Amino acid sequence: MNSKAKARNNYGRAYNFCAGPSTLPLEVLEKIQEELFNWRNGASILETSHRDPVFYEYTESIEARLRRLMEIPENYHVLFLSGGATNQFAMVPLNLLGEKKRAGYVNSGIWSKKAINEASKFCDVAVVANSEPSNYDHLPAQDDWQIPDDIAYLHYTTNETINGVEFNWIPELPASVPLVADMSSNILSRPIDVSRFGVIYAGAQKNIGPAGVTLVIVRDDLINLSPNKIPGMMKYNNQVENQSRYNTPPIFNWYVVGLVLEWLEKLGGPAVVEKQNIEKSKLLYDYIDQSNFYHNRVVKSCRSRMNVPFNLANESLESKFLSISREHKLTNLDGHRSVGGMRASIYNAMPIDGVNALIACMEVFKEQSNVVS
Amino acid sequence: MNSKAKARNNYGRAYNFCAGPSTLPLEVLEKIQEELFNWRNGASILETSHRDPVFYEYTESIEARLRRLMEIPENYHVLFLSGGATNQFAMVPLNLLGEKKRAGYVNSGIWSKKAINEASKFCDVAVVANSEPSNYDHLPAQDDWQIPDDIAYLHYTTNETINGVEFNWIPELPASVPLVADMSSNILSRPIDVSRFGVIYAGAQKNIGPAGVTLVIVRDDLINLSPNKIPGMMKYNNQVENQSRYNTPPIFNWYVVGLVLEWLEKLGGPAVVEKQNIEKSKLLYDYIDQSNFYHNRVVKSCRSRMNVPFNLANESLESKFLSISREHKLTNLDGHRSVGGMRASIYNAMPIDGVNALIACMEVFKEQSNVVS
Repeated sequence: MNSKAKARNNYGRAYNFCAGPSTLPLEVLEKIQEELFNWRNGASILETSHRDPVFYEYTESIEARLRRLMEIPENYHVLFLSGGATNQFAMVPLNLLGEKKRAGYVNSGIWSKKAINEASKFCDVAVVANSEPSNYDHLPAQDDWQIPDDIAYLHYTTNETINGVEFNWIPELPASVPLVADMSSNILSRPIDVSRFGVIYAGAQKNIGPAGVTLVIVRDDLINLSPNKIPGMMKYNNQVENQSRYNTPPIFNWYVVGLVLEWLEKLGGPAVVEKQNIEKSKLLYDYIDQSNFYHNRVVKSCRSRMNVPFNLANESLESKFLSISREHKLTNLDGHRSVGGMRASIYNAMPIDGVNALIACMEVFKEQSNVVS
Repeated sequence: MNSKAKARNNYGRAYNFCAGPSTLPLEVLEKIQEELFNWRNGASILETSHRDPVFYEYTESIEARLRRLMEIPENYHVLFLSGGATNQFAMVPLNLLGEKKRAGYVNSGIWSKKAINEASKFCDVAVVANSEPSNYDHLPAQDDWQIPDDIAYLHYTTNETINGVEFNWIPELPASVPLVADMSSNILSRPIDVSRFGVIYAGAQKNIGPAGVTLVIVRDDLINLSPNKIPGMMKYNNQVENQSRYNTPPIFNWYVVGLVLEWLEKLGGPAVVEKQNIEKSKLLYDYIDQSNFYHNRVVKSCRSRMNVPFNLANESLESKFLSISREHKLTNLDGHRSVGGMRASIYNAMPIDGVNALIACMEVFKEQSNVVS
């Protein structure tokens, strides 16, 4: 048993496959514990002011690290906001519509659809592509997209946690149409070309940190389009001017993001973690595919590396499987309550040992069920 | 030296007089540290899902405890939201105006004025009372308030952190006008009669917990007045229906609020902590008033128990005082950047030892300055 596995055992920790909030690197938790009573200023980070010069310095280092990791061009602002991706579902149209009345959306999963429903309050939504009719089992190829001329921006969701589909390509658009991406569930899991986007946003609670903070990366020419009469908290330009401190921000949550980014940079950044993510997801999909006991319904080229939904051929055994997996200290393998079944979320911080432990448990359960049946 | 003072020394902690985020009870930090790797579910609370049944149970216990502590009547909902009091500056008019076009506001300090500025985007603001002309050195007596008939609600700020004024009375209004209070900086510092209010809101980072979560207590008849086309995150009824889980909420921040409320209940609740707050603030004001070296400009009957701004008779010595106080491990005594001078914030969690240490430092500084001059 290596030292990490030992530490996990000592703390009685399970492998947590939750889709978000999700598992954090053990090193991050250790660092939080170590400096909890006195951060760098005689106070806990939980008691530290957003106006403390030491905290300003720290937040500058967080942003600088993120800019290195994602190679963010200089004409983009980095914001750390509240309200999750759900708040961005409203902030994107409120900030980007300008004089236009229409925006384009790709409907490729349940989260895309939530974004569409919220945007529909503020503009005419043109659904440019839609995989809902086949129950989101694939991503619509771009050749079939219908993109109107008059849209203010085009929005898509790069990874769908519930449906287990993930874009491994970036849509091509006319230069005049900003591309907006909800990357909540796969940001920093692979390198991406930020310069292709107008806005990228991501709730932290999958690959970046704990729930309660949302990363927004916005191109400079897009921050001043909002009307004045929207809530001050929702205006990108207000937040840019105030370095995300238009109100007292969730300081502790920012801090943990800083620790996760530090961990990721030490690991080698998105290019290195991508290899791990490919390896982990391949292990699990290969195991599922060779089995006639488990199955995944997503078209192979569209499968998510982050969220692996699966079912049993015999669905009546699923609740037993979930109960056995919990006994093996493999937790939160339940599928989203809207679709049922099982789901293993294997973000950056899920070690390959966790995936192997899951596969071992799946194999044991299969063998036992076959004996019984 | 008692065991708490020893612990503080061991961790190298200062007495932190920050106006918010502010000092937390040491017991709360100890509890967080103790269970950081494994809360109750094989995962850290930082990795725990808002859908975890164990977390549902915990949040119910937080709400129940708050209801006991504040004696919240059954026809009020309790919400834990994001975006701070600043977000409520917009949410209050967006949710409460209904068919009306006008709302009443008391301008009794810099935070009141921020609330007025934000509300002005959404309605006609009637300023019913205003102490700005005397630079917020008192609270306008209710006899002088001009309350129009057609307002949807009346908003006031129960304590002003920057100006150091605090209401020790609740305004009397016609039953048809809901009273709305920003209690960010004095909630739970004294008993209050919740039934007198339509909405109470409070950013957590003074008396309730860390920054990143906002408590909203809203009367049931007021949650359904908002138009449909406002952001889903901002609708009180959405948040009520979803038990404050309309998006993935800041789980860790909720948890710390739970620990602070547990600490407060063990201490004896608002009635007990009020006595401590009276004692602590009296010590400090009495020391200032008997001195001709320090002074506080607020009319005595309107002085805040939470935030004590003060100046030196010789203002040129102020930066030296701040520097000496930091050497004494008394931090964040700087006044708000908009007004300068000094300010000691002495919320529930500031021990009386901290106030005594401050007074001792003030006395030493006075003696030394008098010798030099």
